[in-house]
Amino acid sequence: MNACIRAVVRKAVYEGIEVAGVRRGFAGLMEGEASPLNAHSVSGIIHQGGTILRTARAEDFLTEEGQGRASDSVKKLAIEGVIVIGGDGSFRGAYDLNKKWQIPTVGIPATIDNDIAGSDLTIGFVTALNTALAAVDKLRDTATSHDRLFIVEVMGRTSGYIALWAGLAGGVEEILIPETRTDLDEVCRKLEEGRARGKTSSIIVVAEGDEAGGAFEIGEKIRERIGYEIRVAVLGHLQRGGSPSALDRILATRLGAEAVDVLRRGEEGKMVGLISNEIEVFPLEHAWQEKKEIDLRFYQLSQIMAI
Amino acid sequence: MNACIRAVVRKAVYEGIEVAGVRRGFAGLMEGEASPLNAHSVSGIIHQGGTILRTARAEDFLTEEGQGRASDSVKKLAIEGVIVIGGDGSFRGAYDLNKKWQIPTVGIPATIDNDIAGSDLTIGFVTALNTALAAVDKLRDTATSHDRLFIVEVMGRTSGYIALWAGLAGGVEEILIPETRTDLDEVCRKLEEGRARGKTSSIIVVAEGDEAGGAFEIGEKIRERIGYEIRVAVLGHLQRGGSPSALDRILATRLGAEAVDVLRRGEEGKMVGLISNEIEVFPLEHAWQEKKEIDLRFYQLSQIMAI
Amino acid sequence: MNACIRAVVRKAVYEGIEVAGVRRGFAGLMEGEASPLNAHSVSGIIHQGGTILRTARAEDFLTEEGQGRASDSVKKLAIEGVIVIGGDGSFRGAYDLNKKWQIPTVGIPATIDNDIAGSDLTIGFVTALNTALAAVDKLRDTATSHDRLFIVEVMGRTSGYIALWAGLAGGVEEILIPETRTDLDEVCRKLEEGRARGKTSSIIVVAEGDEAGGAFEIGEKIRERIGYEIRVAVLGHLQRGGSPSALDRILATRLGAEAVDVLRRGEEGKMVGLISNEIEVFPLEHAWQEKKEIDLRFYQLSQIMAI
Amino acid sequence: MNACIRAVVRKAVYEGIEVAGVRRGFAGLMEGEASPLNAHSVSGIIHQGGTILRTARAEDFLTEEGQGRASDSVKKLAIEGVIVIGGDGSFRGAYDLNKKWQIPTVGIPATIDNDIAGSDLTIGFVTALNTALAAVDKLRDTATSHDRLFIVEVMGRTSGYIALWAGLAGGVEEILIPETRTDLDEVCRKLEEGRARGKTSSIIVVAEGDEAGGAFEIGEKIRERIGYEIRVAVLGHLQRGGSPSALDRILATRLGAEAVDVLRRGEEGKMVGLISNEIEVFPLEHAWQEKKEIDLRFYQLSQIMAI
Repeated sequence: MNACIRAVVRKAVYEGIEVAGVRRGFAGLMEGEASPLNAHSVSGIIHQGGTILRTARAEDFLTEEGQGRASDSVKKLAIEGVIVIGGDGSFRGAYDLNKKWQIPTVGIPATIDNDIAGSDLTIGFVTALNTALAAVDKLRDTATSHDRLFIVEVMGRTSGYIALWAGLAGGVEEILIPETRTDLDEVCRKLEEGRARGKTSSIIVVAEGDEAGGAFEIGEKIRERIGYEIRVAVLGHLQRGGSPSALDRILATRLGAEAVDVLRRGEEGKMVGLISNEIEVFPLEHAWQEKKEIDLRFYQLSQIMAI
Repeated sequence: MNACIRAVVRKAVYEGIEVAGVRRGFAGLMEGEASPLNAHSVSGIIHQGGTILRTARAEDFLTEEGQGRASDSVKKLAIEGVIVIGGDGSFRGAYDLNKKWQIPTVGIPATIDNDIAGSDLTIGFVTALNTALAAVDKLRDTATSHDRLFIVEVMGRTSGYIALWAGLAGGVEEILIPETRTDLDEVCRKLEEGRARGKTSSIIVVAEGDEAGGAFEIGEKIRERIGYEIRVAVLGHLQRGGSPSALDRILATRLGAEAVDVLRRGEEGKMVGLISNEIEVFPLEHAWQEKKEIDLRFYQLSQIMAI
Repeated sequence: MNACIRAVVRKAVYEGIEVAGVRRGFAGLMEGEASPLNAHSVSGIIHQGGTILRTARAEDFLTEEGQGRASDSVKKLAIEGVIVIGGDGSFRGAYDLNKKWQIPTVGIPATIDNDIAGSDLTIGFVTALNTALAAVDKLRDTATSHDRLFIVEVMGRTSGYIALWAGLAGGVEEILIPETRTDLDEVCRKLEEGRARGKTSSIIVVAEGDEAGGAFEIGEKIRERIGYEIRVAVLGHLQRGGSPSALDRILATRLGAEAVDVLRRGEEGKMVGLISNEIEVFPLEHAWQEKKEIDLRFYQLSQIMAI
Repeated sequence: MNACIRAVVRKAVYEGIEVAGVRRGFAGLMEGEASPLNAHSVSGIIHQGGTILRTARAEDFLTEEGQGRASDSVKKLAIEGVIVIGGDGSFRGAYDLNKKWQIPTVGIPATIDNDIAGSDLTIGFVTALNTALAAVDKLRDTATSHDRLFIVEVMGRTSGYIALWAGLAGGVEEILIPETRTDLDEVCRKLEEGRARGKTSSIIVVAEGDEAGGAFEIGEKIRERIGYEIRVAVLGHLQRGGSPSALDRILATRLGAEAVDVLRRGEEGKMVGLISNEIEVFPLEHAWQEKKEIDLRFYQLSQIMAI
């Protein structure tokens, strides 16, 4: 996200626009916090994980009263437009601010889950993907014993992007995601087949939101069925950290600069996204009215590759 | 490349096709070397840099006689189709084999320079990009002294992809690439301006093929003009190594599988590529008849970001 | 371990000694498997995680009968000395082979737990430590929300080396290891104090063998007490993989070469270890007769640093 | 260095001592710059490369006048003791401040060259070593062509620590360091021998201060002699950056805490160092009166391993 904040600030400065940073998102906005940011404020942050503006829950912001306070802050601070970086919830907030309170807003899609329609990739996804992949690779190195099964749980409550892409890139035996029906009997059957063909060990990547459960639960169920020696890793929030990958930073920079242009053109209630390598602009509601479909050909390909 | 070799082999095995690996590319083919590969042969290689099939120069292959030898090998070995993984030179070889010697060939674009028309990304590019970026980041960490200028030379004899993308992602002050005219007086003027604005140190990324010279030469010329303390890094071939990034492996897997399908469909003299996230098929000559244009908006964006 | 295998092989070749590799440890030895290794066999493996010789459980080897089979293999294969790379269990096997079956053996300490007396560091520990640290760093990046507690579970059933060193290096708030008494009430008190002082989020590293439980269990207990939002990561076996760090490879190379020298000098039933930067030789039983004490000053230092 | 600054600050705060940070080292001290640092000031920096206090040349400080200004600043700011983190030059400055100006000083050895007597390891060395090693590993991946020679130049003007340790850990064919006489004819002879034995490609690591020249110069001389295809990488300052390795941070933390204790005990004109895993205290002049000898057994071992 830092790369995106930097891009917004520098593009704005370049265009002669003043910028202020609101810490802790809508929570900070409701409290009227904002500090001026200049080109130097965002110096030396492009390679750092996390965000200099921090984050926070803002449940109050779901209420009319909370939004009213945020709207008052915006007016008091003479803010002419708000750029919101985040996921689905942030976009809905930006939508409300625009539609109900007439504040020009633009949303920039940033979530490691990559599940926002209107952008092929969202900021943070590729970095999280590489982190998950590095974990799979390290397990692969140790996969030198017979009849051992590794299960890695990656993020994705409702979306299997990290699991599917990391699983395909890591050459794992099985990928379990919310978008497909998980049949553990079938999984066990394939594991047994692989064993019969001489596979010494196998790796399963599971998205935390898979309907069959998390890594520990699935491990237990497989153990009951076929008695493998099972080893589990749960990556959790470490997928949210780390220095962003090149493509993430380029995406963040392009989207950030475009968001400033959207406001400059007087557009509002929009989101910016990457579609087929080009930056495009959609209404904010596109993010939830359209459903982004995960490409299940990746899943089929991973199955072919696991032979 | 290993991820691609694995994909070709496993997809072929899946489709019931026998595969053999030719070591050292056309050089090996001219000598009639080929070893059967099965699903297990390509086990545990997806995360390794380099290529299990090795590489070699094959200048003989540019001659009619050399191609004739290769063609004889293909026939003697009863090979029904050849998949060539490589860059422009490899594609021209594949083209000749097909057009002059009637051997069905398919090309898969793999070069860190990313300069092959017909594919938005080529295998190896994203990994090299991340390696170059990691170097820029490390220099950034040390950029804590006044009036110091770092110059990093990255690969790209005729193409500035690595330099441009790594420079944009790294937030560097200046990017020098073959595709743009390099004016060192202008570069020095901007460095002086940055210094006047309070920049303590600056980073320049230069593609090895820039017309102003390599990092050492450019450093010398800048030193003569404005007397900075200049520090140079030349990344060289280390950009070709390292465990491939997730996107590189997914690209390699998709292209490898598609190349097998192209041959299965009886097509030949083709290349496979990634266009707007989809795999497409072109005639091999597309790779050199079309010119892949680098997106100079990235350059302009990097200039805006360097304020 | 690959760096160590390479060192043993190359040192032996250098000294004019023939070497064979036994796959799957004692399990392979009992079955009489051994393949000749030459300098080239161990080429290009020094930077790879895992082990080219693979590993396996060998419960039979705990029996007289199993050891007898191994001993027969050694004699049949005309092996004059056996170098065993591993942890406590491997050393006991090597001890038995030597004392009961008169086979010259040397042990090289390799375990990520670093809990073998006779060596300040064991092969694999520094690499696992850096992996655990990278996880802590990534969590640190995301620690930008209030009242959030991250708990990372690292390896160490009976030993807290990875947890203690990674925790100190990662600057975490609390380190829970088997060697110290864990008092969760006290932990909660300190967390509350930190919160009162303005800490926005905290990280706890716990060794899997801590008497208070694993990360999930401890998380549950803390949540019951003070109601933080708790996020858990369990690193598991991924700590065993990855390219070895420089110090690990140097250690492995030095120990491997010395092990060959020990056999050349006609010594047997020995282990080699690193003591104060020098390689030393001890009887194998030193590994379990002496107790390696973890340096609890590191723990006290981490507490001072967590203020 | 950030880990060390953090340790000094937090240990001081823990002991009830006020701390101020002087930016840009002696240069800042001469100008009387110092800002109070508290526990929070050094929060979230332990994993970042570089130094929050920045660095600068301070040639004036070599003069009596410059030191007088620094001494005045110390008195005006009521500073009771100065902790200096750096290499040989910094230690001489600390020595002068103590001996000539009666200011209590303590030196903490931090240089990637690892060439300070009184400490087995200096802060930054292990991290630089791992960076250099990663470069060697990446070259190794690409070493798949015949008759190709890679030369990597690493830091070390007068000291070969990075080259020797990275070369040994990377399994390179040749290591050229200032501490040994470099005979390029002999190097070429060994390269030719390796080629005769079937080596496809070789890697040389050279310290920048080797008497035979830098990587480009040595490459040219070898090409003249035996006509290899030579590829050069010059790592330069990127060895100074990057997130510090675990051992570096632990070292920095231990030394930083001890430096505070040294001042608390009323000792002055001292340095702290790591000797055989224990922190020890020496007079500052120990750093230049004693000569730290590089362990050439590492070189011999690397030669044995290169067979």
